[in-house]
Amino acid sequence: MSRRILVINPNSNERVTADIACAVEGLRIVGGPAIDCVTLAEGPPGIETQVHVDTVVEPLLRLARRESNRASAVVIACFSDPGLYSLREALDIPVHGIAESGFAVALTKGERFGIISILGRSIPRHRRYVASLGLGARLAGDRADVLVLGCAGMARHRKALEHRLGIPVVDPVQAAVGLAQLTLQIDGA
Amino acid sequence: MSRRILVINPNSNERVTADIACAVEGLRIVGGPAIDCVTLAEGPPGIETQVHVDTVVEPLLRLARRESNRASAVVIACFSDPGLYSLREALDIPVHGIAESGFAVALTKGERFGIISILGRSIPRHRRYVASLGLGARLAGDRADVLVLGCAGMARHRKALEHRLGIPVVDPVQAAVGLAQLTLQIDGA
Amino acid sequence: MSRRILVINPNSNERVTADIACAVEGLRIVGGPAIDCVTLAEGPPGIETQVHVDTVVEPLLRLARRESNRASAVVIACFSDPGLYSLREALDIPVHGIAESGFAVALTKGERFGIISILGRSIPRHRRYVASLGLGARLAGDRADVLVLGCAGMARHRKALEHRLGIPVVDPVQAAVGLAQLTLQIDGA
Amino acid sequence: MSRRILVINPNSNERVTADIACAVEGLRIVGGPAIDCVTLAEGPPGIETQVHVDTVVEPLLRLARRESNRASAVVIACFSDPGLYSLREALDIPVHGIAESGFAVALTKGERFGIISILGRSIPRHRRYVASLGLGARLAGDRADVLVLGCAGMARHRKALEHRLGIPVVDPVQAAVGLAQLTLQIDGA
Amino acid sequence: MSRRILVINPNSNERVTADIACAVEGLRIVGGPAIDCVTLAEGPPGIETQVHVDTVVEPLLRLARRESNRASAVVIACFSDPGLYSLREALDIPVHGIAESGFAVALTKGERFGIISILGRSIPRHRRYVASLGLGARLAGDRADVLVLGCAGMARHRKALEHRLGIPVVDPVQAAVGLAQLTLQIDGA
Amino acid sequence: MSRRILVINPNSNERVTADIACAVEGLRIVGGPAIDCVTLAEGPPGIETQVHVDTVVEPLLRLARRESNRASAVVIACFSDPGLYSLREALDIPVHGIAESGFAVALTKGERFGIISILGRSIPRHRRYVASLGLGARLAGDRADVLVLGCAGMARHRKALEHRLGIPVVDPVQAAVGLAQLTLQIDGA
Repeated sequence: MSRRILVINPNSNERVTADIACAVEGLRIVGGPAIDCVTLAEGPPGIETQVHVDTVVEPLLRLARRESNRASAVVIACFSDPGLYSLREALDIPVHGIAESGFAVALTKGERFGIISILGRSIPRHRRYVASLGLGARLAGDRADVLVLGCAGMARHRKALEHRLGIPVVDPVQAAVGLAQLTLQIDGA
Repeated sequence: MSRRILVINPNSNERVTADIACAVEGLRIVGGPAIDCVTLAEGPPGIETQVHVDTVVEPLLRLARRESNRASAVVIACFSDPGLYSLREALDIPVHGIAESGFAVALTKGERFGIISILGRSIPRHRRYVASLGLGARLAGDRADVLVLGCAGMARHRKALEHRLGIPVVDPVQAAVGLAQLTLQIDGA
Repeated sequence: MSRRILVINPNSNERVTADIACAVEGLRIVGGPAIDCVTLAEGPPGIETQVHVDTVVEPLLRLARRESNRASAVVIACFSDPGLYSLREALDIPVHGIAESGFAVALTKGERFGIISILGRSIPRHRRYVASLGLGARLAGDRADVLVLGCAGMARHRKALEHRLGIPVVDPVQAAVGLAQLTLQIDGA
Repeated sequence: MSRRILVINPNSNERVTADIACAVEGLRIVGGPAIDCVTLAEGPPGIETQVHVDTVVEPLLRLARRESNRASAVVIACFSDPGLYSLREALDIPVHGIAESGFAVALTKGERFGIISILGRSIPRHRRYVASLGLGARLAGDRADVLVLGCAGMARHRKALEHRLGIPVVDPVQAAVGLAQLTLQIDGA
Repeated sequence: MSRRILVINPNSNERVTADIACAVEGLRIVGGPAIDCVTLAEGPPGIETQVHVDTVVEPLLRLARRESNRASAVVIACFSDPGLYSLREALDIPVHGIAESGFAVALTKGERFGIISILGRSIPRHRRYVASLGLGARLAGDRADVLVLGCAGMARHRKALEHRLGIPVVDPVQAAVGLAQLTLQIDGA
Repeated sequence: MSRRILVINPNSNERVTADIACAVEGLRIVGGPAIDCVTLAEGPPGIETQVHVDTVVEPLLRLARRESNRASAVVIACFSDPGLYSLREALDIPVHGIAESGFAVALTKGERFGIISILGRSIPRHRRYVASLGLGARLAGDRADVLVLGCAGMARHRKALEHRLGIPVVDPVQAAVGLAQLTLQIDGA
């Protein structure tokens, strides 16, 4: 089987999946792995609450398990990284969360990063996650040297924001797909 | 309605529920809230993996929602605190996780606490959770001044361990039910 | 001897002791331990400086030692937790400080806690104490998800503040007495 | 000009440069940026001391400046990341250090990472660097979930180590070149 | 009045005061401040428990206040730094604790420091203090690059230990008196 | 040879050297070590960028090596502490950086310190350095209890600032020379 990165949008909004596909378009490599963006039909229309985050894991896991023998890596394209540790535990292939990947890339681009969140209530959830990753000292309270887009469907605003703000802006979907490719390349190297 | 603390064992093992009921027996207060320990029939036989932790949230949430108008507080009696933030978001009553509660009580009993885990693979999960709570500096690497039992059904070993080791041993179920009672008392005070 | 929680107000202001007694009124348990609030006659009128904090330990210790064979637990009802480690070292019964207890309870109620201090000069003292407890990451700089009242005699404002601010407010006296009860219950369980 | 990643081995040992070229061979992308590995002729035979780290910056900077208008990104292929902040300041193109990149990739592969160092005296230098990056909580003291090779010329041992140890092993050169490619792809995306 | 550094041994053991006087002998500066080492007659024979630490503050404060108009700086020569913040609050002259000073000097001599403690039960007290100072990351758990003698009367062993261990050893009394002199010099500079 | 502290101004501006000499004038001790302030002729006119910091190490090291057999200690009088670890590695005598020394002294004078920087772009460099020293928790974000002058030639403003702001202000040159003297005294004690 040729290699394939499966990018799963865990909400059921096809338009977000289209945005995600658009975001990773420029990352496709000739001869490299296919990048397929799919929608989790059983997902909620948007992942906006902790309940959404937690309850989407089960259908996400089912989809990932069903597809896993036809995938070389999985990217979970939601900024809450729902099910990241479950999928890592359940699958034998690399699993990338877009928030974790976004942070990893942001670390190499500036001293402290910020997160643009759509909903205020996501902030404590993001902060807990950053703390669990041991990255609290790099999360900026107010002024940031680099921004991470806190949502899977914002890539089309990345360049404009970067231009307007004059600081690096990281789209987490691109970060995750890129890291997935990189991991596959390194494994095959 | 008189007050009632609903203690949910999220695994389907009735014997663990019985152990839990036993652990909280001594905490019942005359004239205080009822303490009812129930089993989540849809839960796995044991919560041993990250997949168990994540996928149990949905049935746990359904049970909690169904019972919430007959409960004054909920205790999630599994050391991974599955669904803690979801239940807090979804319910209007206090929700206590036994790990979080166990840590809170342990903080007042010694300088650094340790966790007795049944399974080695739980250790990184516990460590991430402790880090997300900002309590990493109080988690002992090797020697501990106070121990937290890392499971819902270990209370009956608490005293013997305490005696044998000569250090405080915290049963997280007792800690959580006690904190639930305390919160109810304070709210009514 | 039946069980008894001795709550010591280390300042000599009887009115504060009355406030404290009022704060714990709702925590009394039928058949549970007696809760006696006493005033340290040798204490200063208020504990407002580091000198007060340090010099009150000796008379506090004398009182605690004198009473210890008639007490099952001691609560030090001053937010600086004066003599907490000395009393723990000197007595064979559990000793609870209201600040430490307040923080422990606050940890389970929101992401980051704040402290309402009466005097500005207390702030560095509180900050050093929170740091020594390893809880700095949970102390909010400016906006808080949960407030801890930074004084022993503020319980009567708790509900109004909670209502006005819309966030949980923890009275440390109630937290400490509640934790003392809980510890006694667990030991007897 | 077509895109080109310039990988600089800051020591003068051509054999190490050959090892580096070998390590990144599998990362080349059809139609992607060229990856050219060059040796810093003025560098010391090996970068083993703090003096080597500090004094190599000047010739490294000269080389990077001279080549910068013919490069799209620079990778500094030495685990001490010599001159990383200087080159970032002096050049208008992305600059990647292999240690920083290795850590970023390692963060996504396990809970805590370790570093295999050739020389014992490098350990405090690595620890200071990890601390300056705010990643101390992810650096394992003794047991590691993922290993970072602490040298530019070790990639050929990566797979064997990974197989032998049963944990992920990150070659920092591959991490840095991969992140450089990724950054270029994202900028062009 | 000519300048005078008052070094107070807060235990009543004259032999320790003699050791302290010996330790600072080499720090006397021609034309510099007098260095007078005095014994706190009301102190306990040794400061070995938390109760000693807390209850010595009152007589220490009385002595310091009585002497303060004849002193330019005070050094508290006990490794628990008893009353440090109280004396700073009560006096208008600089007050130096030997532990705090020892840590400050140790920070400039190696990456991580250790503490040689006489009594095992002092270890949690030291750890809490180091944490309250925000220096936990520099305290070595097991292996240390620099040692701080954890007692006021150990200076005579400093050189032998340094020689035997091959790492810097800091005597906290010398550190504190030296910092006191330095502060006076800077103020007069 | 009698003892001598060599203070090196690593920029080529003689006026800054004169300021430095002035700053340490009051620290000279009768019969104590000579304090000689010298200019690094090969240094840049000012050390304002990371490139300056990194590229000044080589000539600084040459000067220090050339002078080391006629010096008992070296002070690097630039707030970026350029070459601190290299000189420590290369020389057998104590080497003090003025920033590190300034921080060590500041720690004993207030709870949190701030840094007055001349250039905004120095801020991330200072922050990384403070983090690498493990002192991040003591660095104030906005309000500071004690200020460290972030430059070698600012000592003459120290007293006025201290008077104006009402908080301690630490000149790092004085701190470093004082610590150098202290270390020599202790070694000879």
